[in-house]
Amino acid sequence: MHQSNYGIGGFSHITVAGALAHGMKEVEVWLQTISAGQRTPIHRHSCEEVFVVLKGRGTLLLGSTSLPYPGTPQEIPVFQNSTFTVPINYPHQVWNSDEHEDLQVLVIISRPPVKIFLYEDWSMPHTAAKLKFPFVWDEDCLDAPKDEL
Amino acid sequence: MHQSNYGIGGFSHITVAGALAHGMKEVEVWLQTISAGQRTPIHRHSCEEVFVVLKGRGTLLLGSTSLPYPGTPQEIPVFQNSTFTVPINYPHQVWNSDEHEDLQVLVIISRPPVKIFLYEDWSMPHTAAKLKFPFVWDEDCLDAPKDEL
Repeated sequence: MHQSNYGIGGFSHITVAGALAHGMKEVEVWLQTISAGQRTPIHRHSCEEVFVVLKGRGTLLLGSTSLPYPGTPQEIPVFQNSTFTVPINYPHQVWNSDEHEDLQVLVIISRPPVKIFLYEDWSMPHTAAKLKFPFVWDEDCLDAPKDEL
Repeated sequence: MHQSNYGIGGFSHITVAGALAHGMKEVEVWLQTISAGQRTPIHRHSCEEVFVVLKGRGTLLLGSTSLPYPGTPQEIPVFQNSTFTVPINYPHQVWNSDEHEDLQVLVIISRPPVKIFLYEDWSMPHTAAKLKFPFVWDEDCLDAPKDEL
């Protein structure tokens, strides 16, 4: 399995079981490592997500779907063996709020390939969030030379 | 989260994120521990499954879908950090083939609640495999008194 940071500092991603990488049709599993102090982008997607913290500790920031923008997020502490379900379309961000240790999470999503909408901040309207598709690791798969003759 | 062996010796199951337990609609995540020497039943299901070995080592036995019965299974060694995708409808069994340590796996399935077909042995015809639905942990959810008034 290919491991890369896909140009994102303090981040590492492995597609454990992927739609484009391995032909998965219904679920996709990623292993991600976020360095101390780093955050994923604020984003949403219209699929179910479960994440399981394998190592480290951090904070899940969860915005609202009832306002026209995510608003001040809930801050949910997570640590080793925490599991969390992100409801469909909820804007969220994973923050490694620890000062020293890596945060390693297993991310499970339904209905791949994932269509991720990115927010610049918590006050950006939902309608302005920008679709990034294919996302960086799927882009990488599409760019890769095919094994077929 | 409720942990139980559901009457199965040398086995422990936690529904981390479930359809009946938590309202998941698209994916379901289980944490299972299999004692040294124990095996899951031989079974198949028409959903995607990914499993990730968190601790221990064991053997994944994988039967055939091209014969009228599972046949002599492939024996695939698995160990900590192994991840494996079970193709839809492939008869399979997880065996903790280690003599001492527990085998702990995270199981991810699509399209819950899962409909499991059980085989008595590897020579039982696919058509004779017996549907067990709801499965034991889902049965437990259905039996549980509701929180609603």
